[in-house]
Amino acid sequence: MPKPVMNYCPQCGNKTQSKIPEGDNRYRDVCEFCDLIHYQNPRIIAGCIPVWKDKVLLCKRAIQPRQGFWTLPAGFMELDETTEQAAIRETLEEAEAIVKAHDLYAVFNLPHINQVYMIYRAALLKPEFLSGIESLDVQLFSEDEIPWDELAFETMRMSLEYYFQDRKSGEFKFRSTDIDNPSSR
Amino acid sequence: MPKPVMNYCPQCGNKTQSKIPEGDNRYRDVCEFCDLIHYQNPRIIAGCIPVWKDKVLLCKRAIQPRQGFWTLPAGFMELDETTEQAAIRETLEEAEAIVKAHDLYAVFNLPHINQVYMIYRAALLKPEFLSGIESLDVQLFSEDEIPWDELAFETMRMSLEYYFQDRKSGEFKFRSTDIDNPSSR
Repeated sequence: MPKPVMNYCPQCGNKTQSKIPEGDNRYRDVCEFCDLIHYQNPRIIAGCIPVWKDKVLLCKRAIQPRQGFWTLPAGFMELDETTEQAAIRETLEEAEAIVKAHDLYAVFNLPHINQVYMIYRAALLKPEFLSGIESLDVQLFSEDEIPWDELAFETMRMSLEYYFQDRKSGEFKFRSTDIDNPSSR
Repeated sequence: MPKPVMNYCPQCGNKTQSKIPEGDNRYRDVCEFCDLIHYQNPRIIAGCIPVWKDKVLLCKRAIQPRQGFWTLPAGFMELDETTEQAAIRETLEEAEAIVKAHDLYAVFNLPHINQVYMIYRAALLKPEFLSGIESLDVQLFSEDEIPWDELAFETMRMSLEYYFQDRKSGEFKFRSTDIDNPSSR
């Protein structure tokens, strides 16, 4: 994700300057009228692995990027919520499914697109789901039914691999992974 | 942290409107000239517990908030880095100390200030440190020397409590905690 364009101060509308503020060591968008420094930071994407019996719920994306590919329900964390609440909300929005989140299970850093994924394990409270507005289809998949070649994102492939590995061993281990392949998402 | 003020489009400088975009369910700052929606999201604060032998490195804050109180080295994650790199960088900036990060150890959600803390366990590579520009003092503390009543943030108190508990048991367990006390930081 390229750095969003900032040409004007969002507070006063005057032109900003790209400069290194005193005592800092990075270029920032600075407004010399407001004396404001506009910081930009990575974003969190929260999601979950919704489980019903031996199956996992996946959503077929109705929107870009990766329209038509399958994903775990996930999306940008909003203001005024926790990462767990964000994961539950995204599952409701994308799959119209109600989950109870278990532990935070996996964190992925994708510095080349300034994203940090936080994926929870979760239990589907009942096997009811529908395609939300951002989904073309929503389905439960057992391990041997997972459309591995049609997954939308590397983070989702790895989350599912970790999950099925750990389910075999009977012990779910928290994972923290950096994905720095410039073409990964 | 209040929602930052957005009155003008950072791209084109025209007035933005606060409205719910089509297909969305939240108010956003929208520019009808650029057709841009300016999303706002929580920020990540990355830090670490730098350990040398039986001691932990703390920094006395030279800046607000909580100037004069003690903290683990931590700060806002920047673009183009991982959370681990951010934790290492903050330790270098605040304590001029070089650490090797171990596992991600604790995640704290503080939805009332739109922050997510990610704290690593880390090893100080040598017992050398100095007060960085944001620190009044930097010192190593054994468990019974920790200035519990002079800690800057609840997240730091809890991180230290988890650490000393787990050190006794010999097993460091990953923790994920929500802190929703409106006065906590």
